[in-house]
Amino acid sequence: MAEYRKKGQSMLSIENVIGGIVVNWFAVSIIVALLSFVTAAWLYSWVKKQDSGTQKTQQIGKLIRDGANVFLAREYRLLGYFVLVVAIIIVLFLPQPIWQGEPTRNVLMAVAYIAGSVFSALAGKVGIAVATIANTKTATAAVKSREGAFTNGFRGGAVMGMAVVGSSLLGVTGIMILTGDAGLTLGFSFGASSLALFAKAGGGIFTKTADISADLVGKVELGIPEDDPRNPAVIADNVGDNVGDVAGMGADLFDSHVASLSAAIVLAMALDRGLGQFTNMVFCYASAGLLASIIGTLMARIGPDSNPTGALNKSTYITTAIFVGITAIATYAFDFSWHYWGATIIGLLVGVVIGVATDYFTNDERNPVRHVASASKSGAAFTIISGMSYGFLSVFPALIGIAISALAAYTITNGIDPTTNVDALFGISMAAVGMLSIVGMIISNDAYGPIVDNARGLVEMADLGEEALRITDELDSAGNTVKAITKGFAISAAGLTVIALLGAFMSEANDILLAKGMELLTGFDIMNPVVFFGTMVGAAVPAVFSAMLMLGVDRNAQRMTAEIHRQFDEIPGLREGHKDAVPDYARCIDIATQGALKELIPAGLMAILATLVVGFIGGVTAVGGFLAGNIVSGLLLALVMSNAGGLWDNAKKYIEAGNLGGKGSEAHKAAVVGDTVGDPFKDTAGPSINTQITVVSLVASLAASLFIAFSIF
Amino acid sequence: MAEYRKKGQSMLSIENVIGGIVVNWFAVSIIVALLSFVTAAWLYSWVKKQDSGTQKTQQIGKLIRDGANVFLAREYRLLGYFVLVVAIIIVLFLPQPIWQGEPTRNVLMAVAYIAGSVFSALAGKVGIAVATIANTKTATAAVKSREGAFTNGFRGGAVMGMAVVGSSLLGVTGIMILTGDAGLTLGFSFGASSLALFAKAGGGIFTKTADISADLVGKVELGIPEDDPRNPAVIADNVGDNVGDVAGMGADLFDSHVASLSAAIVLAMALDRGLGQFTNMVFCYASAGLLASIIGTLMARIGPDSNPTGALNKSTYITTAIFVGITAIATYAFDFSWHYWGATIIGLLVGVVIGVATDYFTNDERNPVRHVASASKSGAAFTIISGMSYGFLSVFPALIGIAISALAAYTITNGIDPTTNVDALFGISMAAVGMLSIVGMIISNDAYGPIVDNARGLVEMADLGEEALRITDELDSAGNTVKAITKGFAISAAGLTVIALLGAFMSEANDILLAKGMELLTGFDIMNPVVFFGTMVGAAVPAVFSAMLMLGVDRNAQRMTAEIHRQFDEIPGLREGHKDAVPDYARCIDIATQGALKELIPAGLMAILATLVVGFIGGVTAVGGFLAGNIVSGLLLALVMSNAGGLWDNAKKYIEAGNLGGKGSEAHKAAVVGDTVGDPFKDTAGPSINTQITVVSLVASLAASLFIAFSIF
Repeated sequence: MAEYRKKGQSMLSIENVIGGIVVNWFAVSIIVALLSFVTAAWLYSWVKKQDSGTQKTQQIGKLIRDGANVFLAREYRLLGYFVLVVAIIIVLFLPQPIWQGEPTRNVLMAVAYIAGSVFSALAGKVGIAVATIANTKTATAAVKSREGAFTNGFRGGAVMGMAVVGSSLLGVTGIMILTGDAGLTLGFSFGASSLALFAKAGGGIFTKTADISADLVGKVELGIPEDDPRNPAVIADNVGDNVGDVAGMGADLFDSHVASLSAAIVLAMALDRGLGQFTNMVFCYASAGLLASIIGTLMARIGPDSNPTGALNKSTYITTAIFVGITAIATYAFDFSWHYWGATIIGLLVGVVIGVATDYFTNDERNPVRHVASASKSGAAFTIISGMSYGFLSVFPALIGIAISALAAYTITNGIDPTTNVDALFGISMAAVGMLSIVGMIISNDAYGPIVDNARGLVEMADLGEEALRITDELDSAGNTVKAITKGFAISAAGLTVIALLGAFMSEANDILLAKGMELLTGFDIMNPVVFFGTMVGAAVPAVFSAMLMLGVDRNAQRMTAEIHRQFDEIPGLREGHKDAVPDYARCIDIATQGALKELIPAGLMAILATLVVGFIGGVTAVGGFLAGNIVSGLLLALVMSNAGGLWDNAKKYIEAGNLGGKGSEAHKAAVVGDTVGDPFKDTAGPSINTQITVVSLVASLAASLFIAFSIF
Repeated sequence: MAEYRKKGQSMLSIENVIGGIVVNWFAVSIIVALLSFVTAAWLYSWVKKQDSGTQKTQQIGKLIRDGANVFLAREYRLLGYFVLVVAIIIVLFLPQPIWQGEPTRNVLMAVAYIAGSVFSALAGKVGIAVATIANTKTATAAVKSREGAFTNGFRGGAVMGMAVVGSSLLGVTGIMILTGDAGLTLGFSFGASSLALFAKAGGGIFTKTADISADLVGKVELGIPEDDPRNPAVIADNVGDNVGDVAGMGADLFDSHVASLSAAIVLAMALDRGLGQFTNMVFCYASAGLLASIIGTLMARIGPDSNPTGALNKSTYITTAIFVGITAIATYAFDFSWHYWGATIIGLLVGVVIGVATDYFTNDERNPVRHVASASKSGAAFTIISGMSYGFLSVFPALIGIAISALAAYTITNGIDPTTNVDALFGISMAAVGMLSIVGMIISNDAYGPIVDNARGLVEMADLGEEALRITDELDSAGNTVKAITKGFAISAAGLTVIALLGAFMSEANDILLAKGMELLTGFDIMNPVVFFGTMVGAAVPAVFSAMLMLGVDRNAQRMTAEIHRQFDEIPGLREGHKDAVPDYARCIDIATQGALKELIPAGLMAILATLVVGFIGGVTAVGGFLAGNIVSGLLLALVMSNAGGLWDNAKKYIEAGNLGGKGSEAHKAAVVGDTVGDPFKDTAGPSINTQITVVSLVASLAASLFIAFSIF
């Protein structure tokens, strides 16, 4: 918002005064962000202090940690070059060509972009650091008690949750304090999301390459159990859980959180015509969300009789309730608009409802999983047909939920400022902020999953006993259920965020059009063939993007499978499990790493280039359609793939629990096919799509002035 | 277009005078339509005259014919009630409540609606009648010569092609002659498409129930060949080819053709402000398309050295060339707008290009099919993952093609009438007319498929020898390839048609708004949350619709599989193939019929009700978004499912041809899973979606005045 930036407004306008006390919302945000770091540090040191267990556990734990760190280092080095190239492009062209606009702003934009990607990388790095310690601690604790194991797993995950949301709030607030330029937060957000795009894709390809190959040769061909140390890919599989589910997912939600905040700030400042009550409210609510997550996280624990899924869900509900309470009090105390408070709460509640609906489709106590498991008796084809069908059905609650929250947020906030349509767009962006307010808690729940999954592997590989295996199995199953829910949540949140970003895009574009004295955009009319052209291309992008990632996994898994076969053939005694026969774990990690690095760039680049091509052909008008088509098709595919994948996973687990013939039955074989298909669906393509949606929205916003200047139509 | 209707214009305005000769375009259309009926009759009698073959062939042929007729009779009876109920609703409420609007127009609308559904049913009936004769003739001819078999199969299919397009042109022209009311052609179109929706869904469920069950028990479990007469489901499978692929597909393309014509007429009359040159052009081009198809059809034949796929494609190219030629001459002679001629030809060419692109993804000489076949060596999961990936990729050329044709048509026709945006919408609708101009030829090619597929079955069941089997195998394979192409074509044509219908919808809505003195619609702005709400719901509908149909197939196939098992267990000697052991074919047909009838209504009704719910909540504004979301998501899913399905089918055939280990290999087993998954994708859900898209567009257009009067927002 060029005109606000230039006003050089005083920091005073981000303040409220209550009972004579001055509350500066920037200061509050910084304090809460620092509080979350303190919490993270405390949790980290708590986990670190726990028993590291037997030498073998530590040995294997080190293999996983080293593998994850090597992958991360190589991935970040590659992405470093990418970030550098983009930063140079930004300096030259964005938000306006350097020879036309203000060079300082271009440089600041590049710095914000770099900061966003560095923050994202750091959050991922911290998450991996603690997750690869917490896994051994959890495995070791599981030998003694279920409660201890749960606490280790959850607190390990919570470090990630606190680090991610704290960095997001700190980064966005820092930019505002230093520059007062809301447009720069979009640059920060673009840095976060472009890193997330590749981290998600790269991690997703790595993890599924290893997982599929390990299962295919180990479980299916040789009939050796999951996590058997003879399997050369077993360490790579555990590394994959960390780089895919911890680092990748953390980057994804970091990106969504930053994007929702940025969009809200851009729109709030447009409505405030500078800084004012609406901007105050954004920072107040964001701080409240993080605070609620900190409290909720510290309260999570299980008793001897409670189940881990219940404990995770209970913490989520507590966090939600605290957020509702704090924001209501703040709204009353500081005289914020109750309308926008309503929009925020609607977003949050719809997020929770979508999570519950997702649970219906992926929970093994419900009809869909049971039906797919039972259809598997007729063969793998029926596993796929019925699973895809339920995947299709599952989009309904999420899409309707997003539609209703957008409509409701619009309705209760429309007309607050009768001179503009920004008021209602801001309402939608607050619904997104609301949905993402408890994301600290969501990430904690989500990162818990791969930690206990790893712990289960360690228990198996380090021979920690049957009881520990039973406990980690139970914790792992809870992780899977919760993961499906948080995934639905994350996708929906991205959807709502991107609508807000679409509003921010139009607002940015209009600033430029206004400055050039050109006709302003009033919206994107689907009946306008230029918009329609963009819509169609935008709709194709997520499909092509998914295809590229899945074919990448496919190619990479073929390479890895060949390597596993080679090792079993060439290393004497490996197949039989001789004590001295040690597989070459590192070689498998290396293949997964190389393959992932090779495959992660093209898909993301395609999405970014498609945005630019549409923009330079059809201008901002076509880009509006492009973003709309991209959201519709992206949400659809992401939801189908994530939910069908989660469903197949649990259908397989349901059969493995002894139902319908149990392990080794025909139904089980069919269910394994479903699970394998679901792997790249739910862990590679599906969750990468929401990052893809966010990235193209930000590319569009930042390049708006170029499209206006240089498009054909 | 209420205001034109009332003018009671003279028929003269549909005339051009050239060299003193008066050319009345209504008369021309009627004459060409009648010419197509004459051609159909001649082709029918030609096929009828051919040798019916051995007694056994005739016997089995009769079983198939009776099965198809019984299904059709029961389906049409059920749909008769549906049509009646809808007709009553139309009389009461559409286009306006009978107590507010003009009762006569409501009655006429209901009559047009009934006429549309009756014409569609008749075309299906005629198609089945000839297809179930042509199959025995083709099988018998295959004993003697390849050329004879081809001609029988093709001419059988061509009867359907001529009947469908002739009825469409006759019906639309008839309504215009009798009433001069373009709005009523939308009612006719709604009748056609609501019948098509259910015929396609019902036929699709029937055919895939039978196909999957027959394969599962026969080929997979018992290892008996395709079309083995011991298999109780084998006749049902052949009946399914007819009711699904002949009657269902005919209804589908009838519906698209009528819809594209109706939309073009509505927009032409808006542009002509009554009747005039634009309207003349629509009828001229529609007649030219049918004429070109008649000529192309009569020229299709193969020589001893040419392959059948080439022959079918050649006829298509000839038809295309003739159409381009005739319309260019007519445009010159009658002084039509060259801009709109250009838009028409762009639509046609893009249709052909999309067909070729579809061929790339489903042709077994190209990389995708080869890759999927080779991935099958690693197991069924890889068949599915790689096939889905290529399915996703395959949407790209089609969506971009549609986007470019819309944009190009818009660009070259925009500004012809500077007072309105209807000029460019009419350009898009002419692109749709162009794409559908050669549909007579397309249907002929498409209906050829199930006929030769049936013939192959008859050759096997009636023991007509190896040579005949080889010949029908070759012809069948050509049918499969061409079918994949025409499917991509049909989906894209539906896409473009629906955009035109969206224009017609807006035009209809504005007529009503104008009459009520309310603010006119200028478009559907995606940034308007009411539009966005509609978009999200619209996007969910095709996914839910597909899921309902596929779960229907799943349920029905389970029932049928149980019945086949029962027969093999209870009928002594059936498994061993004793001469006296005759399976109860009728029971299987009955199960497929009952199941299809039970499952066909809910999915279609859901789509229609969703439109009404959105309309009554968000008014015409939300419905505009609903249609847009529906097009995007519908095209995406229809293309993915059709193309992935075709690809899996051909990957299986490629392996069966002796590659990668051939029949019985592990790769083959995996490919069979892919093929089975692909069955409901490509023959039930995928092609039903384009009918679903058309139906909701027409429901929206017809109910526009109700939405305006009674919506919440």
